[in-house]
Amino acid sequence: MAMVIRDVREMRQTAERLRASGKRIAVVPTMGFLHEGHLSLIRIARQKADAVITTLFVNPAQFGPNEDFARYPRAFERDLALADSAGTDYLFAPDASQMYPTGYSTYVQVEGITEVLEGKSRPGHFRGVATVVAKLFNLTKPHIAVFGQKDAQQVAVIRRMVRDLNFDVELIIAPIVRESDGLAMSSRNTYLTASQRKEAVCLHQALKLAEQRVKQGVRECESIRQEMKKLITTTSSGQVDYISIADNNSLQELERLHPRQSVLVSLAVRFGTTRLIDNVVLLV
Amino acid sequence: MAMVIRDVREMRQTAERLRASGKRIAVVPTMGFLHEGHLSLIRIARQKADAVITTLFVNPAQFGPNEDFARYPRAFERDLALADSAGTDYLFAPDASQMYPTGYSTYVQVEGITEVLEGKSRPGHFRGVATVVAKLFNLTKPHIAVFGQKDAQQVAVIRRMVRDLNFDVELIIAPIVRESDGLAMSSRNTYLTASQRKEAVCLHQALKLAEQRVKQGVRECESIRQEMKKLITTTSSGQVDYISIADNNSLQELERLHPRQSVLVSLAVRFGTTRLIDNVVLLV
Repeated sequence: MAMVIRDVREMRQTAERLRASGKRIAVVPTMGFLHEGHLSLIRIARQKADAVITTLFVNPAQFGPNEDFARYPRAFERDLALADSAGTDYLFAPDASQMYPTGYSTYVQVEGITEVLEGKSRPGHFRGVATVVAKLFNLTKPHIAVFGQKDAQQVAVIRRMVRDLNFDVELIIAPIVRESDGLAMSSRNTYLTASQRKEAVCLHQALKLAEQRVKQGVRECESIRQEMKKLITTTSSGQVDYISIADNNSLQELERLHPRQSVLVSLAVRFGTTRLIDNVVLLV
Repeated sequence: MAMVIRDVREMRQTAERLRASGKRIAVVPTMGFLHEGHLSLIRIARQKADAVITTLFVNPAQFGPNEDFARYPRAFERDLALADSAGTDYLFAPDASQMYPTGYSTYVQVEGITEVLEGKSRPGHFRGVATVVAKLFNLTKPHIAVFGQKDAQQVAVIRRMVRDLNFDVELIIAPIVRESDGLAMSSRNTYLTASQRKEAVCLHQALKLAEQRVKQGVRECESIRQEMKKLITTTSSGQVDYISIADNNSLQELERLHPRQSVLVSLAVRFGTTRLIDNVVLLV
């Protein structure tokens, strides 16, 4: 069974020992409640490294005051078994009091790309994400870090942070894993009622619609956004938070698509108090 | 002669190679124009480590728009010879365009203790300091980093950042090195006219006065601050920016000294356009 590490110093010492013995370390940061999406990341890490560290930490710094930190689903023993089965060597599951001790006051802020999309709806979210990822990198000393494309903006933020702060970490971004009807896997899917669960497929369907329209030659973004919105509002009770067609690097909204442009189509939809996100990257 | 490294990737690879071969790395971050103060740091690093990396980078991110970035003194060949003579193995001197490439947007912010003293007079200064030190740590992968007590608040900020972001770096803080009349060594002393240079000893004299008063049993801080100010204004043309008697950990100003308290007495004084700082730590 994977070794569970809860102490911050023990994690850092273990990582240092692995490095000193020439082992290649991969880290997979998670907030637990693992599903096939996470397991796909761990399996990739297993292929790429000698030592796989999965981190399990529901990071308070990335939740807003009215968000779901307290009720975020937790299932430690199940997570441990799943992480182990996918190839984890070390499960790092620290307490918040060790990660953010009294007097904690240091934050990593990526400017610009954090202010749109998720950042607009969730102020402070990416400051929390960048901060905890910087901490986890310093604690696990990875050669490789594996993140999921599901959180597309998080990927952009971490990529920028790694470049800007000169972290010596290779990022691997794994594709979104979906349920059989197309719903992107997410720990938050567990909040959905049975009828919301059925309706939630509309996020994926809206993205497929956008993909189809681009293939058909549509270049005006607003008409695509409107069609996506119409699909969601007519087929579900979901409340659209945002529907975005943006440049995949700058994350700036686009009016028109240009040839060979890499485009991030992304959206966030609320079902009751549950907020789901999904995305697809299209090459025009 | 010490090996000069200008390329960011080369620095990181060199550090990784040193680590992989079991070498203990010490880094001494400087902005160049080295004096005996810097050399004392390098000599400490030499005693503590197998490989000594001195960094030489005038960091634009820690200068305000009306500060002395453009005229900050530079003397590369002299610095190289001095750094080498004190025991430097690698002199890392990157270009600003590599440290802050186009689209750079990530900053490390230590809150609270950065808002007083130097931070009050120099908004953004410590954000620039924390950011560049985080970058230099990631590039030089040190076991040990040596900083000077001269920049007392910088020491507090870096100590907090290292703890909060879990950097695996041991900090060594070296005492202030002074000229024969007591003036703390500083690259900025070179800006002083001959008469300002003579007057500048008042910073040290004011600190000695504070030390004497505390030894004599004075516990009211404001009376000590007033005496320090009077000494400076009556013996020099210096304009007092601040005189502070603060708790050495929180950096909060004190009204009264308490037994066994560690107290930072610090001050900043302007001579024309030149701003000098100095400090002493007293145990009450």
